[in-house]
Amino acid sequence: MQGFPPEPEYLITQPQSNFFSFPKMRWSVCHIRELMPTRQVSKGIAGPGSWKMRIDPDINNITFKVSGSDEQLTWQQSLALNYTDGILVLHRGAIVYEQYFGCLERYKKHAAMSMTKSLVGLLAEMLIAEKRLDDKQLVKSVIPELAESGFGDASIREVMDMTTAIAFSEDYNDPNADIWQYSYASDPFAHHSANDPVGYYDYLSGIKKQGEHGEIFGYRTVNTDVLGWIIARTTGKDVATLLSEKVWQQFGAEQDAYITVDSVGTPFAGGGLSAGLRDLGRVGQILLNRGRYNDQQIIPAAAIANIEKGGDKTAFARADYQTLPGASYRSMWWILHNKNNAYAVRGVHGQTIYIDPAAEMVIVRLASFPQAKNHYIDPTSLPAYQALADYLISKKSTGR
Amino acid sequence: MQGFPPEPEYLITQPQSNFFSFPKMRWSVCHIRELMPTRQVSKGIAGPGSWKMRIDPDINNITFKVSGSDEQLTWQQSLALNYTDGILVLHRGAIVYEQYFGCLERYKKHAAMSMTKSLVGLLAEMLIAEKRLDDKQLVKSVIPELAESGFGDASIREVMDMTTAIAFSEDYNDPNADIWQYSYASDPFAHHSANDPVGYYDYLSGIKKQGEHGEIFGYRTVNTDVLGWIIARTTGKDVATLLSEKVWQQFGAEQDAYITVDSVGTPFAGGGLSAGLRDLGRVGQILLNRGRYNDQQIIPAAAIANIEKGGDKTAFARADYQTLPGASYRSMWWILHNKNNAYAVRGVHGQTIYIDPAAEMVIVRLASFPQAKNHYIDPTSLPAYQALADYLISKKSTGR
Repeated sequence: MQGFPPEPEYLITQPQSNFFSFPKMRWSVCHIRELMPTRQVSKGIAGPGSWKMRIDPDINNITFKVSGSDEQLTWQQSLALNYTDGILVLHRGAIVYEQYFGCLERYKKHAAMSMTKSLVGLLAEMLIAEKRLDDKQLVKSVIPELAESGFGDASIREVMDMTTAIAFSEDYNDPNADIWQYSYASDPFAHHSANDPVGYYDYLSGIKKQGEHGEIFGYRTVNTDVLGWIIARTTGKDVATLLSEKVWQQFGAEQDAYITVDSVGTPFAGGGLSAGLRDLGRVGQILLNRGRYNDQQIIPAAAIANIEKGGDKTAFARADYQTLPGASYRSMWWILHNKNNAYAVRGVHGQTIYIDPAAEMVIVRLASFPQAKNHYIDPTSLPAYQALADYLISKKSTGR
Repeated sequence: MQGFPPEPEYLITQPQSNFFSFPKMRWSVCHIRELMPTRQVSKGIAGPGSWKMRIDPDINNITFKVSGSDEQLTWQQSLALNYTDGILVLHRGAIVYEQYFGCLERYKKHAAMSMTKSLVGLLAEMLIAEKRLDDKQLVKSVIPELAESGFGDASIREVMDMTTAIAFSEDYNDPNADIWQYSYASDPFAHHSANDPVGYYDYLSGIKKQGEHGEIFGYRTVNTDVLGWIIARTTGKDVATLLSEKVWQQFGAEQDAYITVDSVGTPFAGGGLSAGLRDLGRVGQILLNRGRYNDQQIIPAAAIANIEKGGDKTAFARADYQTLPGASYRSMWWILHNKNNAYAVRGVHGQTIYIDPAAEMVIVRLASFPQAKNHYIDPTSLPAYQALADYLISKKSTGR
């Protein structure tokens, strides 16, 4: 988008213009609010918290082997290959690496995509720790509107761990997948016919059951929007407001964040967040610190322990994620169950917060990778993160 | 908007739902971004500047006589009568009065409506002071696309002072006024036909001349969008970006602001801003300080002097503003030419920044008054501001 007005071939507009196709996406990921209605996730009025800075330029030269290949890359080479827009590495709470590319700058926000889910999952875990929500309850007991839907007899835990059995396809490479109809229902710009579902809640109520809950991990965004609904009904506050009150106002954020909303004002719990790179780093650091930040317990340690322990590995294995062998999914977080006990937040097109407790490391990467699915980007990412973790651990042990 | 989802009778949605009708407006003024695409006016990353606090509860009891009536009111009584959402009074740079009502809170933003115009006018005056813009130039020399329109042979000064002679009606009480077609053209949710103008710039190019420029003040929002276009073409930056760089990042803002955009991403220079109450107070204080703030010259003194001196009173008198006798309009600011040399920023439904140099006073009022036109609210506002100015001057002189 350049010029006043932009020439037609450079114009990027509302959802029907396919603003998330590549290369338009390289601009859109930093400009969601200019294309869609959004709700503020306020940081409040206070100034930002400070960071310890301990930039280590040697990180650029760390080498790693691409998964499933003999190719060697440096950390720095991987950044451009992965269409990185912003990358932040925290080690023992200090910033050791920070770069901005593409459309992103420090005072700007980037689409978090499905990383939004993990923040909603975190809110749910906080409510569970506060005894305001019971994950053994059935969905229909909290949201009667979903009683007749496929979600009705699922437990809140099954929704949180995405082991519900529902008739909903989410293959981003399939233009006929249900996810696109879901996007259309929630698109405030769509010209809906009289019988079309309008908005997230309306669509969710019509999803049918398919199979038995609790057996197979099935990554379906609609679970998170059901969870967002449960949270809103339980607390009387939508997830944007709650995320502001419970997280963004608590940790010295540098910027407000925001979440897209549908035509009836419902925030998109499944993927609507945009936020600043450093603020997403704060999210990771709080998790790494098991909820403590600036000497305050912002998030109950039990909520984070409940995420870290991971989900049902057998149910996960049935879903056949080739780049994530032995992993699990818990409360909308990806638990790698690797030697470092790493776990992650992941969003399409390469968004991640990667938390490595053994290395006391948090990585945030924001990207506009051409392909949606992360298995395309994992081979040049996950081994890079492990190599960086190894480097930071060895650096610490050698006292460098 | 309450409930998840809201009941239909409480639902407020996109522009076609008439979200600016009363009483929906009482909610909408704080939630524009949830209804429309918007562009950030970043405050940058730094923390907010501090305020001296010198709250004076006696202000509540100041009495004044309603214009054109024998009725006496107290300051406090006037607030509810005027559907005030937020009111801030600064005296000699300190906060002496601050109240939030309705939908507004300190960390939230409120629609500024046509107060946006004055900030765009201020940007233009800054560019003139920097010799980057010459107000004697004709519009067509900067924007060739407007050469055949009614604006083509107007000077930039005539645009800034709204003395262009164009065929465009802006009576908010007339449902057939051109302003509604303009709103429709710029509404990203509208279903435009093939020959409809789409977006601000497209519509502006089709406006015809009617009469002679420079003779009569004619309050028409389209002038400001022409000025916004001139500023964007001159600087290579849209008004949201420029407002961030030249103002919001300079004065220790507490919050980002934002501006609505049309379907091609053009910010609505004529009325799209939403901002926090205290940040609008900072705008007023900078003007009062003739551009100095925290010992820095943020805005050239010449730019502000050019506004303060006022516009063509004869041209203004021809427009017959009954509540503003003897006033003028200069660079999108309302100059009262009263004994205190007060001048103001004004937006429909009761928005104002009122700057009184004699009393060293700035008032910001954000409101959701049922009627658009300010002449309905002036009788219970302007005499209240004068009474408050008198009180502050007498307080200073008596050393209280």
